[in-house]
Parts: sequence; C-alpha cells; structure tokens
Amino acid sequence: MSGPQARVPATIQFTKGHGTQNDFVLIADEDAELDLTPAFVRALTNRRAGIGGDGVIRVVPSAAVEEGRALLAEDPDATWFMDYRNADGSFAEMCGNGVRVFAAFLERFGLADLSAGGIAVGTRAGVRRVRREPNGWYAADLGVWSLPGGAGAASEGADAEVTVTGLPVARAALRVDIGNPHTVVALADEAELVAADLRTAPAVLPAPPSGTNVELVVPLGEREVEGRPMGRLRMRVFERGVGETRSCGTGACAAALAVRAWAGALAPEVWSVDVPGGQLRVSARPDGHVELAGPAVLLASGVVDVAALLG
Amino acid sequence: MSGPQARVPATIQFTKGHGTQNDFVLIADEDAELDLTPAFVRALTNRRAGIGGDGVIRVVPSAAVEEGRALLAEDPDATWFMDYRNADGSFAEMCGNGVRVFAAFLERFGLADLSAGGIAVGTRAGVRRVRREPNGWYAADLGVWSLPGGAGAASEGADAEVTVTGLPVARAALRVDIGNPHTVVALADEAELVAADLRTAPAVLPAPPSGTNVELVVPLGEREVEGRPMGRLRMRVFERGVGETRSCGTGACAAALAVRAWAGALAPEVWSVDVPGGQLRVSARPDGHVELAGPAVLLASGVVDVAALLG
Repeated sequence: MSGPQARVPATIQFTKGHGTQNDFVLIADEDAELDLTPAFVRALTNRRAGIGGDGVIRVVPSAAVEEGRALLAEDPDATWFMDYRNADGSFAEMCGNGVRVFAAFLERFGLADLSAGGIAVGTRAGVRRVRREPNGWYAADLGVWSLPGGAGAASEGADAEVTVTGLPVARAALRVDIGNPHTVVALADEAELVAADLRTAPAVLPAPPSGTNVELVVPLGEREVEGRPMGRLRMRVFERGVGETRSCGTGACAAALAVRAWAGALAPEVWSVDVPGGQLRVSARPDGHVELAGPAVLLASGVVDVAALLG
Repeated sequence: MSGPQARVPATIQFTKGHGTQNDFVLIADEDAELDLTPAFVRALTNRRAGIGGDGVIRVVPSAAVEEGRALLAEDPDATWFMDYRNADGSFAEMCGNGVRVFAAFLERFGLADLSAGGIAVGTRAGVRRVRREPNGWYAADLGVWSLPGGAGAASEGADAEVTVTGLPVARAALRVDIGNPHTVVALADEAELVAADLRTAPAVLPAPPSGTNVELVVPLGEREVEGRPMGRLRMRVFERGVGETRSCGTGACAAALAVRAWAGALAPEVWSVDVPGGQLRVSARPDGHVELAGPAVLLASGVVDVAALLG
C-alpha cells in the first residue's frame, strides 16, 4: 500500500464536475503536496469502486510545479496550472471540456475572478484563455488548428479513408489537428450516425503513426443567430485509446472545422455542435485559433476516504 | 423543473459505497422528507452527469414509511428501512450487496450498533438480519431459498437450457430462487467463462415469464478452511433488465447453491465466490436460509448541488 499512498493524506477533498458529460474529479492542491500516482488516479476514476470520471484535474499553483513556472514566464497571469490525468493515470496535455470545468472550479472556490475578461490557465499545451459568457457557459481558446493535409486536402475535402463497423463501404475523411490528431468522416444522414457501431475502433487509412480520434458527423445546415450565420452539426466520437465517449471538446472543434472546410469559402465561422452529452459551440477565429464554448457543471463536492478507496 | 425538484432541497448529503463493486448512492433521510422521484434517482445514478451508481439507497426510519411500519409490527428491532431504487428509478425489493453497505452506513454514522450480534433491517422483501464479522466483512441473511424445479431438478441437476453468445451449443442449467429468479449454467473451464459474450442476454428455455438473472459458473473444487470444507467457484452474471454487472449478491448465492446441488449430498455448506468485482462468501444454513458475506466499503461522502444535478 505504501506505493499509491505515498504523500496522499487520509482524506482528500474533491469536486465532481462535467462538461457535456465529459466528467472529472477535481482536486484543489494549493500547497502542491499531492503526489497523484497512476494507481491513485485509476482508483479515483474507477466508476464503481471510486468517484468515477474520464480524468482527474489537479488544481495547483503554476509557481509550484516546473511545467507551470515555464508558463508563468510566458504569461504571468497563468497563476493556476491544470494538471490533467487521464483515467488510466497517464498525463494529458489538454482537455477542451476539462479546461472549462477547471475555470468554473476556480471561480466557485474564489481562486480566480472571471467577471472581467476571462483568465489565463496554465496547461501542458501552453497557456489557454477562458472566459465566462453571459449565459453561464465558458469559452476556451484552444489555440491554433490546422489541416495536416494542407490546401490540397482542404480543396479535395479528404485526405484519409475510414471504415466504420455497421456502415457500408469506406468513407472519405479529412484530418484535422487541434494539438491532437482527428479524422472527420461525413455521414449521409442521422440514420447512419445511429447505425455506426463504435464499440470497435474505426479503421483509418493511411494509418496514423500515433493513432487518431475519429469523428462521425452529420451536417445539419445553417441558420441566422443574432445576425450571424451559424452552422450546425451532430456528431459521435471515438477517442483514441478510450472508445466512444459522450463528448470530446477537441473532437467537436475538429468536426466543426472539417464541415466548415467542406462548406467552402462562404461557410459560417461559428458552429453549434450536438454531441451525445449535450451541446457545444465552436468558433473559427480570424487569428487562426479555435474557440470551444459550452457548459461547465460542478455537481457535488465531498471527501474521499483514501484507505477505503485504495482497498 | 418542478416535477423532479418537488420536496427535494437545494443540496443533499450523500455517501458513495460499494460491495464487490455493486455501487450505491446512500442518502440518510431521518425525517422522511425526501421524495425520491424516478427522475431524481436517474440523475443521481448517472455515471457522468451525476454521482453514479447501480442504485440509490434511502436510509429512512421504518416508522416513517408505510412499508416499514408493517415490518416493525413483525420485528420491532427493524428500526431502519432500506428504500432501494434501481438506477432506472424503479423500486427493488432487495439487494444482497446493498443491504451490507446499508448496515455499514448505519454503523458509520452512529445510527445502529453492530457490535452485539447484528441488526435487523427493514426491506421490501421483509426483515433481514446483518452482522459484522471480525474481518470487517458484513454477513446478511437473505432468507429462504428454493429450487423451483424441486427434487426432480435437484437430482437431474438441470431444469432449463441456456444459450450464451460466444459459447458453442446450448447448456443445461438449474433454476434457483433467492426471492428473485436465477438460472445457473456450469461451464467447462475458465477459458469458457472468458469467452462468453454477455453484451447480449443469454437465451433461456423454457422462457421464464418475468425473466431471469443468468449466472455462468466454473466450480474450482474444495479446500479445508478452519476445519470445515469450503467450496470455491468463479462466476459472471447477467442481471435481468441490466446486463452484465461486476457483482450480484443474490446471483452469487444462486451460483453457490446450484454448484452445491450438483456436488451432491457431501457438498460443503460454505462457498467462496469470485465475482468480477471481488470475493463473496455464501452459506447454506441448516434453517433453509442463505447467508451472503462480503465487504462493504464507504468511500466518499459529500454534498450534491441539486440544481446542477438536474441541469
């Protein structure tokens, strides 16, 4: 027991939060005392014997961790660092749903003031800005995006081929990079979206060397919202190394950006994206960044008994 | 929102517990004020947008609810009633893992004293006695069991036939009643146990009118434990209306009692049962009752924000 319990106290305060049902166990570690071992992260995220979550988010002062200090040099406003761990205990660079929940947590517990123009958050992918919108949603700048296939892929609309269990024939697909790799497939209609069997990973050609997330999308047209055109799409996502999930923030961005590329020069810059876990909004900003907006819910807080958790 | 929130306060204290990874959200309702609507139960048990659990256990004084008052007339010691709800919001009569966690909860929060001979618990299946063992496990008397097929089924060892996806040919099976219906299938070895695909319900003939839980078991022999023979088996379970689960208390009982019937007159009365979520012990008592023993873990307590939960 000494391994996973090393530097873990007898009880730990936690908060459970989610963004479009991408859910997290948040732990404030203001004194940077907590050693989040992979075994401890797996115990916390276990959905039956633990709290349950897609990941653990440790909220730690940037000045207290090496990765954070480097970011402070770049942006002194990034006083809090998002130490994100996947449910399997591995490190993750970023999580588009998680960074919104992180900001909501800072606000709820009085660690940051989002009333004036948003905040800077330190992450392993660099500094990310998050602001709160009047409707209570949080909007996060997820940085620069790109089409790995370049202008050729953009004009052809495809640079990959994906085979999905449950759907006939291989489909043309477009690769999108949001700091992590995505491959987006347009389906004919919502019936195909339902018919797709994502219990097994879609087969992608050419096979990406370090894998790819795969988004299945159905464009649902455009409409005018507050004087601006807004596109709409519905999607499902297969996350690399995880399986199908209820939501993936960068996946929603990739899906919107691919559909926007397919729609051509006059395509909307703002997209409403229906994921199984709710609704997100993706904006392609003029500066080449992509912004993800959506809800961030903090639903419960409490205390974990570490000995009971680790059995 | 008025429906699910009716008579639900702004915040609710909860505890998350599990028995061999059959997990529950426990709520103490000492003044019997809480109206557990199906929608609220579904929100609480949602594993991503809620706390998550196989069910909700409301801990309420027997005297405060009609079902409980009838039990008090039968056994005045049954002062607490286990109001168990399945994750879908429906009522359940009993839960063999849940009643142990219920007892651990009473003890933890000073609502009952288990140091002297155990306690009586009111449940929809009647009064159940639970005691704490020296090793920290809890043992619950689950009442009278029977073989619906009677002596004929016992001597033949089978009164049903089960077809399991992933396994060749239909298998002979024995029906066992533990207050709820079970059908137990012996497999040849652990390789078959692994090969069984329980993503779909096994087909049972004759088809039971109100369905059945199905247990796949591999007997693992006997050994001497503290001077008494103890049988051992490994199992997986498909729960009626739910799917495969990590553990099912009455399912473990049914599995042990079926293997005991197959083993004949000299079979052990006590069985160690390995379920995917851990280990249980089942005893066939001389009085015709079956007793289920195993761990009961209370791993976290906290406060749910009801408005955030109900979105």
